[in-house]
Amino acid sequence: MPYEIPAIVQDRVSPRAREYLKKIDHFVETECIPADSIYEAQISQDPTLRWKSYPPIIDDLKSKARSQGLWNLFLSKTHYSQGAGFTNLEYGLMAEILGRSHVASESMNCSAPDTGNMEVLAKYGNEAQKREWLEPLLEGKIRSAFLMTERYRASSDAKNIDMKMRVEGDSLVLNGTKWWSSGACDPRCAVYITMCKSENNISTDAFKQQSVVIVPANTPGVTVLRPLHVYGYDDAPHGHAEVRFINVRVPKSNLVLGEGRGFEIIQGRLGPGRIHHCMRSIGAAERALDYMIARVNDPNRRTFGKLISEHGTIRTWIAESRIAIDSCRLLVLNAADKIDRVDAKAALREIAMAKIVVPRTVVDIIDKVVQAHGAGGVCQDFPVARMWAGQRTLRIADGPDEVHLAQMGRNENKRAEEIMKRHAAQEKKREEMYRLWKIEGRSVL
Amino acid sequence: MPYEIPAIVQDRVSPRAREYLKKIDHFVETECIPADSIYEAQISQDPTLRWKSYPPIIDDLKSKARSQGLWNLFLSKTHYSQGAGFTNLEYGLMAEILGRSHVASESMNCSAPDTGNMEVLAKYGNEAQKREWLEPLLEGKIRSAFLMTERYRASSDAKNIDMKMRVEGDSLVLNGTKWWSSGACDPRCAVYITMCKSENNISTDAFKQQSVVIVPANTPGVTVLRPLHVYGYDDAPHGHAEVRFINVRVPKSNLVLGEGRGFEIIQGRLGPGRIHHCMRSIGAAERALDYMIARVNDPNRRTFGKLISEHGTIRTWIAESRIAIDSCRLLVLNAADKIDRVDAKAALREIAMAKIVVPRTVVDIIDKVVQAHGAGGVCQDFPVARMWAGQRTLRIADGPDEVHLAQMGRNENKRAEEIMKRHAAQEKKREEMYRLWKIEGRSVL
Amino acid sequence: MPYEIPAIVQDRVSPRAREYLKKIDHFVETECIPADSIYEAQISQDPTLRWKSYPPIIDDLKSKARSQGLWNLFLSKTHYSQGAGFTNLEYGLMAEILGRSHVASESMNCSAPDTGNMEVLAKYGNEAQKREWLEPLLEGKIRSAFLMTERYRASSDAKNIDMKMRVEGDSLVLNGTKWWSSGACDPRCAVYITMCKSENNISTDAFKQQSVVIVPANTPGVTVLRPLHVYGYDDAPHGHAEVRFINVRVPKSNLVLGEGRGFEIIQGRLGPGRIHHCMRSIGAAERALDYMIARVNDPNRRTFGKLISEHGTIRTWIAESRIAIDSCRLLVLNAADKIDRVDAKAALREIAMAKIVVPRTVVDIIDKVVQAHGAGGVCQDFPVARMWAGQRTLRIADGPDEVHLAQMGRNENKRAEEIMKRHAAQEKKREEMYRLWKIEGRSVL
Amino acid sequence: MPYEIPAIVQDRVSPRAREYLKKIDHFVETECIPADSIYEAQISQDPTLRWKSYPPIIDDLKSKARSQGLWNLFLSKTHYSQGAGFTNLEYGLMAEILGRSHVASESMNCSAPDTGNMEVLAKYGNEAQKREWLEPLLEGKIRSAFLMTERYRASSDAKNIDMKMRVEGDSLVLNGTKWWSSGACDPRCAVYITMCKSENNISTDAFKQQSVVIVPANTPGVTVLRPLHVYGYDDAPHGHAEVRFINVRVPKSNLVLGEGRGFEIIQGRLGPGRIHHCMRSIGAAERALDYMIARVNDPNRRTFGKLISEHGTIRTWIAESRIAIDSCRLLVLNAADKIDRVDAKAALREIAMAKIVVPRTVVDIIDKVVQAHGAGGVCQDFPVARMWAGQRTLRIADGPDEVHLAQMGRNENKRAEEIMKRHAAQEKKREEMYRLWKIEGRSVL
Repeated sequence: MPYEIPAIVQDRVSPRAREYLKKIDHFVETECIPADSIYEAQISQDPTLRWKSYPPIIDDLKSKARSQGLWNLFLSKTHYSQGAGFTNLEYGLMAEILGRSHVASESMNCSAPDTGNMEVLAKYGNEAQKREWLEPLLEGKIRSAFLMTERYRASSDAKNIDMKMRVEGDSLVLNGTKWWSSGACDPRCAVYITMCKSENNISTDAFKQQSVVIVPANTPGVTVLRPLHVYGYDDAPHGHAEVRFINVRVPKSNLVLGEGRGFEIIQGRLGPGRIHHCMRSIGAAERALDYMIARVNDPNRRTFGKLISEHGTIRTWIAESRIAIDSCRLLVLNAADKIDRVDAKAALREIAMAKIVVPRTVVDIIDKVVQAHGAGGVCQDFPVARMWAGQRTLRIADGPDEVHLAQMGRNENKRAEEIMKRHAAQEKKREEMYRLWKIEGRSVL
Repeated sequence: MPYEIPAIVQDRVSPRAREYLKKIDHFVETECIPADSIYEAQISQDPTLRWKSYPPIIDDLKSKARSQGLWNLFLSKTHYSQGAGFTNLEYGLMAEILGRSHVASESMNCSAPDTGNMEVLAKYGNEAQKREWLEPLLEGKIRSAFLMTERYRASSDAKNIDMKMRVEGDSLVLNGTKWWSSGACDPRCAVYITMCKSENNISTDAFKQQSVVIVPANTPGVTVLRPLHVYGYDDAPHGHAEVRFINVRVPKSNLVLGEGRGFEIIQGRLGPGRIHHCMRSIGAAERALDYMIARVNDPNRRTFGKLISEHGTIRTWIAESRIAIDSCRLLVLNAADKIDRVDAKAALREIAMAKIVVPRTVVDIIDKVVQAHGAGGVCQDFPVARMWAGQRTLRIADGPDEVHLAQMGRNENKRAEEIMKRHAAQEKKREEMYRLWKIEGRSVL
Repeated sequence: MPYEIPAIVQDRVSPRAREYLKKIDHFVETECIPADSIYEAQISQDPTLRWKSYPPIIDDLKSKARSQGLWNLFLSKTHYSQGAGFTNLEYGLMAEILGRSHVASESMNCSAPDTGNMEVLAKYGNEAQKREWLEPLLEGKIRSAFLMTERYRASSDAKNIDMKMRVEGDSLVLNGTKWWSSGACDPRCAVYITMCKSENNISTDAFKQQSVVIVPANTPGVTVLRPLHVYGYDDAPHGHAEVRFINVRVPKSNLVLGEGRGFEIIQGRLGPGRIHHCMRSIGAAERALDYMIARVNDPNRRTFGKLISEHGTIRTWIAESRIAIDSCRLLVLNAADKIDRVDAKAALREIAMAKIVVPRTVVDIIDKVVQAHGAGGVCQDFPVARMWAGQRTLRIADGPDEVHLAQMGRNENKRAEEIMKRHAAQEKKREEMYRLWKIEGRSVL
Repeated sequence: MPYEIPAIVQDRVSPRAREYLKKIDHFVETECIPADSIYEAQISQDPTLRWKSYPPIIDDLKSKARSQGLWNLFLSKTHYSQGAGFTNLEYGLMAEILGRSHVASESMNCSAPDTGNMEVLAKYGNEAQKREWLEPLLEGKIRSAFLMTERYRASSDAKNIDMKMRVEGDSLVLNGTKWWSSGACDPRCAVYITMCKSENNISTDAFKQQSVVIVPANTPGVTVLRPLHVYGYDDAPHGHAEVRFINVRVPKSNLVLGEGRGFEIIQGRLGPGRIHHCMRSIGAAERALDYMIARVNDPNRRTFGKLISEHGTIRTWIAESRIAIDSCRLLVLNAADKIDRVDAKAALREIAMAKIVVPRTVVDIIDKVVQAHGAGGVCQDFPVARMWAGQRTLRIADGPDEVHLAQMGRNENKRAEEIMKRHAAQEKKREEMYRLWKIEGRSVL
């Protein structure tokens, strides 16, 4: 592996996890990374076919991975029985390796949004829901989408969501439009986990008016309007869809957990998912850094008589990238470990830190990698421009950095009372000491 | 206009230029910006047609603009007779307005690389070359490309370029591959201004081995290999081409200025072109800032009970963007003014400053604008993601920032000798003063 | 001069100002900079004498400067009759040169807070006040202090100030405590320009409750409590005082302009003063950059086989410092020019920009200069640590950056309505164009 | 404690260490922090006495601390027998708490440079040297200095040091000048650990020409020339000395380890010392953050109708400071843990990361804390300006950041060969896949 397990977590990684890490590293480096280009090439350029097929190589990779036991690694043993038996910390280390390749996560049935959706179903679904949807997802037979964000609402404040749901007899009737429904463009996408708001006032508590509903993709009234682009990339075949619901009717039994319990569910969904995203981002940053180092040592690319790597600015970039990556990794692993030791709720602050700091750091690193490649960096000849775009969205997904920072600032600021009390006690002691030591003059801190 | 002419240049803008600024502002705001979406929609999505046509609306805009005299504004009166009679500073202010819209520059026949190519032909071309190529370019009847950068060479050090040229009788024979030949994918592109290196040693001076050759686009042996993407954008119909030359034969009379004079020509080409790019970037930043302000004041996008514009972080972004834009503008106008007062060579430092600082500043501003739009910002629903990608390339085009910074550092560092001499004189005077005032103890600075 | 007048303001600098710039540059480089060390050495280290004397060399410098006509250069010809007859822009260029030396401003009777106080008296004082205080200040016979900020109030919001003033017959009675009264520790300081708040409600308008009062330094009831330090420096003999007023009684005729007109006065005081500060900061940055360049080219300081100046990181620092300084200068000169063309009120935005951006930029540059000097940089052997500390306070003086940024953000945000209107018009035009060109599909921006 | 032990190291902290952490926290919060002001007030302002005494309160604190077993906590159990029996990681957590107070480290006999000097003597000293110098240091009866850096040499490259040593019979004769000898101004300082260079060529290996010599402070020929300032602070009574050696003669038995082994010794000295410094810096940052939070919630300091803590910019500062501190802590603890698991040499990269990133991060945080205090922040009324100055020197001590970054960049860049090999293997596999899947067109990454 290009990196070693950080000293500080050595004791937290089981021998079995180490063995898997080795296998995953080998599979990603020798199978997935080379396959990335094939996958890309197998996506149809014909606009009429682009969203109706998917690259056949992925089935090949899935079957190879599964045969090696590299499958459903993400469901942590601390909270689920259906997974491969690793802790969040251990899977975090694995997710980092997956993050190096575009196709690796899907190859091992560990890709978003399926992972989060499987967690929702495993944790909150009833037996029928599990049988119908969780099982084929765990088998990798279908894919899914998570429908949350909406175009015309500032949905970083989730209370603003506006997809309407009303109960009519044994049915639920849904109306509204979602966007950034990642995966909903994929022809294999069979089910949407959908966040709705009750049309009728079911609670005065703003956090108890939302529900999570399972909507089969082929339900009448559902229209995938268009794929959204990310800096020019459409991310086919997965895609990011705008999806319209007009009088979409599903059985009431498709409610997860119960009406009004949507917030409870999505909050439970967020913790480990953020760890996965962050660790994959770190893997992307490692791969990008590899590209930078390879590029600046290319003997054909001397400028002003030197290898590019001999220029001080580049050296500094490399060093700062190394520090930033290692620092991010510790931050995320610490959050993962806290989830393992307690749970996601207890690790709220640690997860938020990772969510804030990792994407912005990784975006900065990859931007430098792009720059080190010159014009090559921004185009299709290297994966770095695309990696940048993918990472850039993570500064927005699940709410922009700034919202999380503001919230973390508010929480940290709650220490004010305790601090002031402590300062006051110290001031009192200080005054005593002034008297004891017979020092005159006014006391300042 | 959304901005006023900065105080400091009020006296440098003629009444005629002010009148034109008003007309250009009106044309851009009322014709070009609305047309941007039409232009985009008129580009074919069919990969077999995408590079064989161009949006018809552009001809409409060109004819409207020309009828108002908004044509060829860029050729400065201080150095050319063929232009509209403005100084570089005045055109700089105009270019800023053009930069707000994707189609504005082309509408007024002021778009790169044609502008730089026209400057080359006007300044260095002979009468035959002017007649054949400059005239149809000035008329907007054809378009052109500038073939400089190469894929396998670190061409930010222009001495590295490797397109081979040899003289065979009355012909020149060219072999090699260029890339990032912007505009070469356009069906209207009729001519390439091409930088080559003599196959034979014509000089031991590393700066006298290059030549500029005029190559008609349809010359046998020329192949446009593929369009390069900028992040996910292909910038059709203009595009950025990789172009292969195999035994491409043109008459020797297609040499501009003479063999070995390539460096002289491209250096003359760079100054005003950088001013134009920078001012357009500033216009892009202004438009992006408009979008940010509009977005954060959208009454439907309240978060946590407030308009987004009421959050302190956003306020700071707006203020810092305003300062950064105004500061960049002064830097570029100062460079333009120095070109007008003396010439581009004298303004080398000022131009380099603008070239370094404007793109990185504008990229940062637009990135914040993207962030302020949330998920909307990265997709096709607002022009800001695409603007970001376009500006991002300017940190690389004509050599990455870091190369320019290193060079500027080297030049500034040449002051060392003068400074040391001055410091030594001060030290001597200081010692005298110590004696005069009878102060003991050793003198430190 | 180590710098040339920027191209863009060449026409705004009169031949007489150019001549003065040359004389000032010569005086500062050959007299003031060497004298800085003598001045420092002549300050008493004995705590009982430290605040009772001042370095004799300053009188020498003042007399030399005055004999060359280098005196009271700051009072702009556009708004005052008592000055040397230069515009704000011209004096700005001069102030930059003054900023290179610790003693230069005082040598030419151009040092704060006297300059601002003289402006207040010249602009708002009556004849008696001018005779008594303005004349000796213009003569350099006395010095003065400006008493505004208070320790226990967030006085960046000036409405918070709490020094109480009440009218008793023909007297004013003042009570309260001021701090950061720069210059009030100096034995030559004879008068305080003091901002007070009326004890009685004289207006419901929060901006009309303050008054400016002239308080002779020796008035009974005034106590200079202590000097405040700036990062360990006490800035003797000038100093920054905490000053207590207990029933300080002055004649009512010491009111400037009238009761309740304090805001009006201090706002008039701020504009040109901020220009002066900013330009001096730029001069400090230039001198610091000189030190950096001298240091990194010291042949005795090779590391790892190279001059420090040959390391890429240092080159980048030098280049970025050059750009930042030149950029700041243009920003300040543009503000000065707008004051000259109209007045300080019209230039509010331009002045605010300079106030925000110059100190933070200069602080960053000098910090790099410190770093380039290694351990030498933080100690007394070079002036750079002290320069840093001095500049650092300017990010706080007259209100912290963040307050100014927030205010500028609020003002800029007022453009929202105009922008939205413009966008709506463009949207309407866009819809027309869609129809005209027969393009289907929904219109997005 | 205001912070919890990070999840990730929970298992690495013994119950005994937890108990000590609690005791140390209590002692620092209730004794040391209040004592900081007393200590400051007990330093003489009289320049003739300032360096001849030290604040009596420190002896009081030392005796209190020792009576609770809080003594010599720093000597790690993994590598020394004389210490309190903690790992580097455990002591790291303790050092963080010490870092909150100016006097805490000395109170517990854990202050630099004594700690590093004791490590040198314990690790490399012979029995006689230990008896004479290590024992009284462990007892806290004397203090010591470490003489390394020199004024006229770029000593961040330690090969440049120039203090001359020659062997004359049984004596060593030393000549030269050292500076930044922290602690050498203290009247209790009894011994200097001194880095010298052999006058005679003893080796052609540039790393084997240096020796470490024990020099009693009162040896004839030694002169403490002057205290150096850090910004305006002289850090009395400890101080940072310039020390001159003229023919200073000590017995040859004062050589540590042997002639030419200086590099070996100082490299062994650096690892844990950097961990201590970094963790103390983190403690300083925590205390500074406490001050910020207290200040911005002060109900008397409302601006524009709000508590300062309600402004978005401040909230962001608080959140970003929290993240940065927690992130730094993990980085340092990871390095400490690696020292514990292997040794300092194995942890070279991890230590270097901490050394680079912690001081610059902490300096930035404290600068924001200063800013949040307005004018109060820069002066003596809060400890934050002084804390800033102290931390700022750590970006220079033991070599400036930039040198460490360059070195780390060079090391990281050594991965180039491995990466290129891996990329080549991937490229080969990719080509195979292209063939297998029958995809035409050239392969790009």
